[in-house]
Amino acid sequence: MTARMLASKPIVQKLKAEIREEAERRARGGAPPGLAVILAGSDGPSKAYALSKESAARSLGIAFTLHRFGDGAEEAEITARIRELNSDPAVHGVMLELPLPKRLNAARVIAAIDPDKDVDGVTAESRGRLLQGRLDETLLPVTPLSCLTLIESAGIDIAGKNVAVVGRGETVGLPLAVLLIKRSATVTVCHSKTADLKGVLKRSDVVVTAAGQAGMIKADMLSQGQAVIDAGITVLPDGTLAGDVEKRAAEAVSWLTPVPGGVGSLTVTLLMKNLLKAMGLQGAGRAA
Amino acid sequence: MTARMLASKPIVQKLKAEIREEAERRARGGAPPGLAVILAGSDGPSKAYALSKESAARSLGIAFTLHRFGDGAEEAEITARIRELNSDPAVHGVMLELPLPKRLNAARVIAAIDPDKDVDGVTAESRGRLLQGRLDETLLPVTPLSCLTLIESAGIDIAGKNVAVVGRGETVGLPLAVLLIKRSATVTVCHSKTADLKGVLKRSDVVVTAAGQAGMIKADMLSQGQAVIDAGITVLPDGTLAGDVEKRAAEAVSWLTPVPGGVGSLTVTLLMKNLLKAMGLQGAGRAA
Repeated sequence: MTARMLASKPIVQKLKAEIREEAERRARGGAPPGLAVILAGSDGPSKAYALSKESAARSLGIAFTLHRFGDGAEEAEITARIRELNSDPAVHGVMLELPLPKRLNAARVIAAIDPDKDVDGVTAESRGRLLQGRLDETLLPVTPLSCLTLIESAGIDIAGKNVAVVGRGETVGLPLAVLLIKRSATVTVCHSKTADLKGVLKRSDVVVTAAGQAGMIKADMLSQGQAVIDAGITVLPDGTLAGDVEKRAAEAVSWLTPVPGGVGSLTVTLLMKNLLKAMGLQGAGRAA
Repeated sequence: MTARMLASKPIVQKLKAEIREEAERRARGGAPPGLAVILAGSDGPSKAYALSKESAARSLGIAFTLHRFGDGAEEAEITARIRELNSDPAVHGVMLELPLPKRLNAARVIAAIDPDKDVDGVTAESRGRLLQGRLDETLLPVTPLSCLTLIESAGIDIAGKNVAVVGRGETVGLPLAVLLIKRSATVTVCHSKTADLKGVLKRSDVVVTAAGQAGMIKADMLSQGQAVIDAGITVLPDGTLAGDVEKRAAEAVSWLTPVPGGVGSLTVTLLMKNLLKAMGLQGAGRAA
């Protein structure tokens, strides 16, 4: 039996329609959503990511501004711009393309972002609100949100399910584990030191991998009935993309997200959804 | 075979000697460590906890101030005092006895504490730094720290070990799980919705319980070879204290923490250790 593919495309279409409608409503009310993206240095992929956000924003009726800094930019210039954007009422989301050039202190630059405008969920304050269970008051990082959205798209209620998260990184694995625990899954976090990865995976109802090691999850480590969410993306030498799960695992499980076309293809849309949530936080916080 | 008891007493004695020495060194340098505890309302246990901190602080050469607010105190009065303490160079740690009276917004009061003085590790910023893996730059909540200290006192290297955390609360279970993952344990977080608690516990090398349900962990759910850390504390109708693990489980496992005399008996001392760490953070942060 071949797994049902959990592709992002239908979810993206549905979400975009909702976001466009809400953005139009906001614009009619005099406050079109505004997203500011900061791009520092000349890292190639970062520029492409910023441009894909610009294109998505414009197609959804969201005002987009790109703030570029050269390779020689000072930390203080960037943090000063972030503070301007924090206090600009036309800007509701501030996103920093990462990684920053190495000579900049990323932690200090990130800390300058207003948590209520932190649409990428990268500040310590945003992460802390997640750990405190204040899910309505925080902006969640988009890759874990994408994983959760794909699990739900399979019609799976994860409360009480055994979920294995492979990878304990700060961008995906750890915040995702916390999010799944809040949703009442029984979560096991696996990583390079895990003694019996296959045993943990075999016992799981849902497996989410965010290890970034192409093909490391083999078909014989998985089982029929499982939903497997692959958040790993590796660029192979021939330029194609590969996930953490080997291709032929599609025969071994019941649901599988493709790479590309799965977790990664939802993130830009979820960023725009976070922008609308951020507008709500700013309205609530500033009215109080 | 009866479990070896992992009692706090010898650890407390060792830590106290180290803290006293460091406090004396700081005092000779002109900056004795200073701890401020805020007690709002007339919750009985909170007053007793504050007094036990005062007694511990004084015995260790730590300057202690208690800031009392009556049942009718306004939120703004308390946050104003916290901000004064934040900017007082003689105060290195600010701790709020919880719970606050119900009519106060605890999240807003907690948010007023300077994260570098947050010796109880309760602010979103402190929790976020933990999730971001910035362990040297954050103050960790003392109950999870106590659990980790007791595991280490059994001579167990938890890297690669299977650890079950029973309970997903924001004070103990969740931050402890993150801390253990950072230490390379393979962690499974269990809670009321977990389908097969016994199965998870049986497969674990270390079990930490923080459920707060007296005796819910039975001997037949555990195994020889395991270390069991009981962070549950329930006051029974007869006034005695009980942990989450039933007493006769001591026959079933290899190490067990007593209740009382285990996890809870280490926390006040670890708070003082956090105070010294806070002094380091303030020195580092403010010199930069």
